[in-house]
Amino acid sequence: MDLLFVTGNKNKLKEASQILGFEVKGIEVDVPEIQDIEVDNIIEYKARKAYEEVKRPIIIEDTGLYFESMNGFPGALIKWVLKSVGNKGIVKILKNMGHRKAYAKTSIGYFDGDEFRIFSGIIKGEICEEPRGENGFGWDMIFQPEGYDKTFAEMTNEEKNDISMRKIAFEKTREFLFKLDKEVGSL
Amino acid sequence: MDLLFVTGNKNKLKEASQILGFEVKGIEVDVPEIQDIEVDNIIEYKARKAYEEVKRPIIIEDTGLYFESMNGFPGALIKWVLKSVGNKGIVKILKNMGHRKAYAKTSIGYFDGDEFRIFSGIIKGEICEEPRGENGFGWDMIFQPEGYDKTFAEMTNEEKNDISMRKIAFEKTREFLFKLDKEVGSL
Repeated sequence: MDLLFVTGNKNKLKEASQILGFEVKGIEVDVPEIQDIEVDNIIEYKARKAYEEVKRPIIIEDTGLYFESMNGFPGALIKWVLKSVGNKGIVKILKNMGHRKAYAKTSIGYFDGDEFRIFSGIIKGEICEEPRGENGFGWDMIFQPEGYDKTFAEMTNEEKNDISMRKIAFEKTREFLFKLDKEVGSL
Repeated sequence: MDLLFVTGNKNKLKEASQILGFEVKGIEVDVPEIQDIEVDNIIEYKARKAYEEVKRPIIIEDTGLYFESMNGFPGALIKWVLKSVGNKGIVKILKNMGHRKAYAKTSIGYFDGDEFRIFSGIIKGEICEEPRGENGFGWDMIFQPEGYDKTFAEMTNEEKNDISMRKIAFEKTREFLFKLDKEVGSL
């Protein structure tokens, strides 16, 4: 399919190709991330801007971590909280917020110059009282998915990928792309 | 002077004209704010993008609130914290962070298509244990400047404007603009 994944991350590209079931090519586009808590808004802006450069159907992905006691904050801005205070700091922030419920959301935006679509995967869980585990990156060591007694960083890659919000989002994207292909034969 | 202030805020425009000593005209430009903690980075991006639209010398302003115990977070992202948890939430966030030192920073970016300059004003202070005062907006009721026993929201407009980081930044801008005017006679 004449589809490009706007990312500079080879691991994401590999994962996307595996789940989509065909090899998707990556492209790096210099488009800024706008300020917003909601990943969907950031993705829509980025997708439309990236399309202007690329002029081919693209997909683009972003993941946020939403704290329910903080009305969703930080969401897509989690990377800035992490950069400033780390996982230990995030755990402290939540100490006075009443509860630790959180959800992780990955959204994938598709834009072909005409149709814009968003496909999301959400995993509910909670932020731990202390970081736990060493496998993973970002906030993996403080997020424990509902129904599990391990953080993402305490799981094997296989376990984590099997329940990841990214997987759900890519599966929905695949479903859409294959339906589109049946309709217009573009895949 | 052939200078435009990129803002849709009439109060800011009035304040700018008063401090600069000449009437500066406003212009609204649809340029996004990129994700960053540092106001200077956001301003530089915005100034260069706005110039592409306007093609005339512009100034642009942004203010951030930096918590020292959180390595500066949230800085320019303060509006998102405020929107999510309000001043009461911010006060709670700081409860486990060790201390309440903070600084407010206004930066003004100038760009004429060639030269880019930043002028900043910083006011040190601390975040109160509880919001206090009713005059003001945003985080005025939780920020108490060093050497004062009032928050910005407990001061009169006059008192507040007299010590504001915005005033310092505009005074530095004025100095630069008048020097520029002497050199090239553009004012």
